[in-house]
Amino acid sequence: MTEQGCLFCRIANKEIPAKVVFEDSRIIAFEDVNPQAPVHILLIPKKHIEKISDLTKDNADMVGHLVLAANKIAAEQGIRDAGYRLTINCNKDAGQAVFHLHMHLMGGRKFAWPPG
Amino acid sequence: MTEQGCLFCRIANKEIPAKVVFEDSRIIAFEDVNPQAPVHILLIPKKHIEKISDLTKDNADMVGHLVLAANKIAAEQGIRDAGYRLTINCNKDAGQAVFHLHMHLMGGRKFAWPPG
Repeated sequence: MTEQGCLFCRIANKEIPAKVVFEDSRIIAFEDVNPQAPVHILLIPKKHIEKISDLTKDNADMVGHLVLAANKIAAEQGIRDAGYRLTINCNKDAGQAVFHLHMHLMGGRKFAWPPG
Repeated sequence: MTEQGCLFCRIANKEIPAKVVFEDSRIIAFEDVNPQAPVHILLIPKKHIEKISDLTKDNADMVGHLVLAANKIAAEQGIRDAGYRLTINCNKDAGQAVFHLHMHLMGGRKFAWPPG
């Protein structure tokens, strides 16, 4: 379940503090320490999954669970109607920096195109 | 199921041609007509859902289905290991241009941060 030395596993296990905005039995969401928008939340499964390309039929429902939580947080933070961008980076070219699956929820400003 | 005048419903219904790269009973994936990366695919549910914030517990599994298809396409297009970025825009601030839920799969180059 937990990968030794994984930053996000340590946050999920409360070994490292984070500004948690949502949590249930399967996932946890917290503020990005290097925010790129007025609202910038990371949503992660508590179970260690390295990257989005590792998902299979058996655990792909995790993504829907993350999205429903992101929607709820977006509503709470008052950005749902103006808009928000969800981003998942897979591997180096995309800039995945922590190899524990995470979804970025960003809002509170206008976003440019392309997305990076 | 189909929203009159919706561009993506018309693509799903084959009323407008698109370069389709994947299709099953629930979703269809096709090349973006204004690509922002060497690989730029749009993945959509065939059923009309306006935006990601409209998902509920009853249909949130759609996102996992889209992600598994994106992973498969990424492998086929040879970008899985180098990396790819998945993006979903919700509402105007995020730049959602077509109000039929879609996920962008982009790869084949390095991506900058922030994502727009």
